[in-house]
Amino acid sequence: MKRLGNQTIKLDTPVSILNTACIVGPKESEGPMAQYFDKCLEDEFWGEETWEKAESKIIKETVNTLFSKSGLSSKQIDYCFAGDLLNQCISSSFGLRETNIPFFGVFGACSTFAESMCLGSLFAASGAATNILCATSSHFCSAEKQFRFPLELGNQRPPSSQWTVTGAAASILSCNGQGPFITHITPGKIVDLGITDANNMGAAMAPAFVDTLITHFQDTGRTPDYYDAIISGDLGYIGKDIATDLAKNKGVNIQKNYYDCGVLMFDKETQDTHSGGSGCACFGSIFSGYFFKQLQESKLKKILCIATGALMNATSSQQGESIPGIAHALSIEK
Amino acid sequence: MKRLGNQTIKLDTPVSILNTACIVGPKESEGPMAQYFDKCLEDEFWGEETWEKAESKIIKETVNTLFSKSGLSSKQIDYCFAGDLLNQCISSSFGLRETNIPFFGVFGACSTFAESMCLGSLFAASGAATNILCATSSHFCSAEKQFRFPLELGNQRPPSSQWTVTGAAASILSCNGQGPFITHITPGKIVDLGITDANNMGAAMAPAFVDTLITHFQDTGRTPDYYDAIISGDLGYIGKDIATDLAKNKGVNIQKNYYDCGVLMFDKETQDTHSGGSGCACFGSIFSGYFFKQLQESKLKKILCIATGALMNATSSQQGESIPGIAHALSIEK
Repeated sequence: MKRLGNQTIKLDTPVSILNTACIVGPKESEGPMAQYFDKCLEDEFWGEETWEKAESKIIKETVNTLFSKSGLSSKQIDYCFAGDLLNQCISSSFGLRETNIPFFGVFGACSTFAESMCLGSLFAASGAATNILCATSSHFCSAEKQFRFPLELGNQRPPSSQWTVTGAAASILSCNGQGPFITHITPGKIVDLGITDANNMGAAMAPAFVDTLITHFQDTGRTPDYYDAIISGDLGYIGKDIATDLAKNKGVNIQKNYYDCGVLMFDKETQDTHSGGSGCACFGSIFSGYFFKQLQESKLKKILCIATGALMNATSSQQGESIPGIAHALSIEK
Repeated sequence: MKRLGNQTIKLDTPVSILNTACIVGPKESEGPMAQYFDKCLEDEFWGEETWEKAESKIIKETVNTLFSKSGLSSKQIDYCFAGDLLNQCISSSFGLRETNIPFFGVFGACSTFAESMCLGSLFAASGAATNILCATSSHFCSAEKQFRFPLELGNQRPPSSQWTVTGAAASILSCNGQGPFITHITPGKIVDLGITDANNMGAAMAPAFVDTLITHFQDTGRTPDYYDAIISGDLGYIGKDIATDLAKNKGVNIQKNYYDCGVLMFDKETQDTHSGGSGCACFGSIFSGYFFKQLQESKLKKILCIATGALMNATSSQQGESIPGIAHALSIEK
């Protein structure tokens, strides 16, 4: 493995993304990206008694869908990297406990899928594993209940708030395969500029996105033009604007080819999600459903994915703490 | 990296544990291991207003202590792997946000320190990093509040319950250094035998410990005699007995050289902790404080550390779910 600059790792052997899968909830199914998802659910419970159990079922069935699509079984997977937003990441551990795959629990808030793929690609590139499973989930109802207010209260959501995506995503990384390939990873630092508004995650996470973005370009000597698309996970409308401005102030113009999965997920006019989508499954499902297929079909050839996470919980906000952000980058080429 | 059997990775280059540090709370300071810890606190708050903030301060100061002891600064650390028991791992992210080190959040419940060292050692062995920081924490008061009942209620604790260790631990792994060396890792699978009693973590986690133990011996062709000590993280008195029996039933006798950090941490007669210690800092501080020094002084030369975690949360128990366990193994030689 080759270190570039301070943070970036160039993988000795580019790691192939063999396949991806994603399942989303009803609101996502009404959005502009619906056609790209493997399965769209009609309700948030999917036959389960609680939102938490529904979320576990979604990640479990997403992984089963991935096994079907890729023609691989769990016995052919060496290690799994997974995590989610629920306290102690129970969606992943309950949803994946029957897979019988050695399991690394990962927590990067909404950056978890990118973090999993960073770690998994290093395992595959180093020869420690042949096939790696990465998975994540989030659920609007379980997240609102846990981080904000009971849904039954019917609280009004401020304009800066984002809508946690209900869904799950999974990918298989391999040292075999025809690509698309993960070639570089730039794991991010924790960046905290003192934002305390738990209803403005985009503002809290944008500085971490820009820190990893700038570092990636410094480390690799690349410029935004190198990529067909630069993709953030869930900064939403407000965070995307802040990130674009912050990057510009640091001399990096990403306006031409910058997309945010939180902006892509929902229709701004009709779906009333305010600043856009968020959650582990926001980047997860848009990457797995849309961008992965764009790479497969060579409509995009080089992309830089930088998923962000807000490393807070309900207690920290109540205790007046600010919201630290983090962002992990993956450079992927067809 | 060389795969042995189904789960074990033999590191191409053994990874040196450059140094360790640990700070513990007042109850741990009155226990039989007190002399081995770097700092013993006199109260649970350490000048902070809340238990959560105190826990963050403990992990922060443990890492600062480690930097002092090792003569390294945060600038010389390439990546950090850390996690803890608090919801969304906030002790680690708040405690370590000022280190400015690229950060991987990890969640393996009480196995988190071992999981961090598994991941960190692979990064160092693969050439992706020179120096890696691993860190974890737990806090009796913040854990009781979050997982069980408010301490103010004064609930009676059942005899099978364990006492969450207040403290933090940290280590620096390096591709340079004189050892002790991590030579093999055996990441564990999620094992769930259907235990639902959240006051009997030892019973819930013992099957995962035995699964990883047996797998490690199968993968490496070793027997328990190979090691001077086999060490579990926090099975406690009840879990240790179950693990010893389960292993024996599978043809592996570990009675001669098997130690549990939860048993070692407190005095059974005088400290009233029932089934022993638990929490991320239980394995973390006993390994960092005691076993690491035993290796340095060549009192022990080969040890197998298998830290366990219970992958549940308060909601899953309320919803009647069982408690999945996990265990990650590190083979360490002087």
